Amino acid sequence: SRSIRLAVIPGDGIGPEVVAEGLKVLAAVLPPDVKLETSPYDLGARRWHAGGEILPDAELQSLRHHDAILLGAIGDPTVPSGVLERGLLLKLRFAFDHYVNLRPGKRPPNTGDRPSVDFVVVREGTEGPYTGNGGALRVGTPAEVATEVSVNTAYGVERVIRYAFELADARSRRKLTLVHKNNVLVHAGNLWQHTFDTVAAEYPGVTTDYLHVDAATIFFVTRPERFDVIVTDNLFGDILTDLAAAVTGGIGLASSGNINPTGAHPSMFEPVHGSAPDIAGTGKADPTATVLSVALLLRHLGYEQEARRIEAAVTADLAERDAAAPRSTEQIGDALTARLAG
Amino acid sequence: SRSIRLAVIPGDGIGPEVVAEGLKVLAAVLPPDVKLETSPYDLGARRWHAGGEILPDAELQSLRHHDAILLGAIGDPTVPSGVLERGLLLKLRFAFDHYVNLRPGKRPPNTGDRPSVDFVVVREGTEGPYTGNGGALRVGTPAEVATEVSVNTAYGVERVIRYAFELADARSRRKLTLVHKNNVLVHAGNLWQHTFDTVAAEYPGVTTDYLHVDAATIFFVTRPERFDVIVTDNLFGDILTDLAAAVTGGIGLASSGNINPTGAHPSMFEPVHGSAPDIAGTGKADPTATVLSVALLLRHLGYEQEARRIEAAVTADLAERDAAAPRSTEQIGDALTARLAG
Ligand SMILES: CC(C)[C@H](C(=O)O)[C@@H](O)C(=O)O
Ligand SMILES: CC(C)[C@H](C(=O)O)[C@@H](O)C(=O)O
Repeated sequence: SRSIRLAVIPGDGIGPEVVAEGLKVLAAVLPPDVKLETSPYDLGARRWHAGGEILPDAELQSLRHHDAILLGAIGDPTVPSGVLERGLLLKLRFAFDHYVNLRPGKRPPNTGDRPSVDFVVVREGTEGPYTGNGGALRVGTPAEVATEVSVNTAYGVERVIRYAFELADARSRRKLTLVHKNNVLVHAGNLWQHTFDTVAAEYPGVTTDYLHVDAATIFFVTRPERFDVIVTDNLFGDILTDLAAAVTGGIGLASSGNINPTGAHPSMFEPVHGSAPDIAGTGKADPTATVLSVALLLRHLGYEQEARRIEAAVTADLAERDAAAPRSTEQIGDALTARLAG
Repeated sequence: SRSIRLAVIPGDGIGPEVVAEGLKVLAAVLPPDVKLETSPYDLGARRWHAGGEILPDAELQSLRHHDAILLGAIGDPTVPSGVLERGLLLKLRFAFDHYVNLRPGKRPPNTGDRPSVDFVVVREGTEGPYTGNGGALRVGTPAEVATEVSVNTAYGVERVIRYAFELADARSRRKLTLVHKNNVLVHAGNLWQHTFDTVAAEYPGVTTDYLHVDAATIFFVTRPERFDVIVTDNLFGDILTDLAAAVTGGIGLASSGNINPTGAHPSMFEPVHGSAPDIAGTGKADPTATVLSVALLLRHLGYEQEARRIEAAVTADLAERDAAAPRSTEQIGDALTARLAG
């Protein structure tokens, strides 16, 4: 019989609230023969405040022994900026070599006469300006110098580009756009561009193009329907996927997977949104982004049909939403669960 | 009697077309006692193709002897990416220490019931990932490594932040937002944040806040009216100002000034848009971004009233635009000139 060992990191703010709904939906969609074992991990701001711990090594090791990780949100204004992001979230992405950060951008069908939007951003997850390279000299003096180094390797760039081509090749439009800033960041840009061109030769069925990141933001606003699959650097991907959320269904619908496609390490699924401490506890958080992240998790583990059922339930739910009658986090989770049971 | 020695770099694609209209408007608005001397500089793709020259030193020196520079657009797909951008455009910004890259974002008043938008992005222009630091090893092999180094100094960060506070303090809403990514780029982010906080103490009348660049893109789409003055790094500013154009009047209206506030070097004014080779020669380019850049130029040289007259003429022109009856580049320039004469 089949089983899923799932590590769960609810995290801070609205994290635990949306994760609860995500788990509810997961339980509702799984076939009866699949055994789901969840192990909760108490990580985030509360834990840090309690004893200064961020991600103890024993916990990092124990997380490895899972098929996947579901994460809610990490971060709180009471913790200095960067401490939890780098010590926990990014540490997991790097430790588990999540080199594909997959972020779909879909515009729900109930949005008037605008063209429908259905693209996926493949954001590199283990290199670029996120490596923690760089430093500072003479901090706090008028002679301070601070650097940040974007590190890009053929090894890292090629594997994510290859993943993006595979993904594009399997979709109906078969189009892949490289986004970078190769007219200014010429060294990294050159590596990305020539790797992209080389791999492209192996995928004659995929149409390709290139956009500077600044120009890409314009197209996200004016013609998001032009995109199918986008592959880009870690930082550009961070920026573009928040923008993608804003121009499609909003940040309440944006899901993501931090994926290690080799299966050597567990992949991690999380909503793109943050911990939103301002609405924590109010029941206003939309759990849909987490629910859609659960769909990505299921797809990654080979449960394609279950992933699609969740996505269909969300599409149906969105079509019936009434802006004048907002529902609570739990009500949305229950409605989705009911659809899956029905 | 007064005079303006203006260097003009029409550049590539639609550059010469929009610059012609900008100069027409400039001539129309200047008081009769102001003598305008323009010196054209033939720089850009054509020149590079003809003999490989990008910006000969003699021309760089001669550009110095002007009160300001008006630039159309630089770049063409037939020139390898980065050659003209780094050899000409960025070279000028660095040589003339254009540490303030000023980019207004205004939503014209004739856009329905949406709130009006009127913000200014103060983009740092001489540091960050634009310094050309970094390099590549083993290019073209599977062991290639390429780096890009963002360099940030207290000297460079403080002066642009100070400029932004001065600007915010002189506006009616007196609000300044710092945009960075200090939860990931901790060294540079820390320098920006503590410098911002220190300078803020000198401007008690200015309300301040901070946004991560990814979150800022969401607000640009959902609530652009929340912004008054924004100060940010060179690369974030590049990305945000194209986005700003998209969410306000479009790239056809986005103006910019590459400013050296000390007056030690000539400042340079240019539309944010590129050379758009696809529409060059068709008369479809909107010269308004260049015309508004001329207004920034006049303001910089102390002609505040003339700058305002241009801005008012543009506002009036926009209010009367008819999407069903698009005008040519020249017709828009003529209409603006006529308003200024009338
Ligand atoms: C919280 C932060 C470190 C993170 C990132 O920059 O990747 C977030 O913005 C995201 O997009 O997942
Ligand atoms: C052409 C390019 C070098 C330039 C930049 O990146 O600054 C442009 O995008 C701009 O915004 O002026």
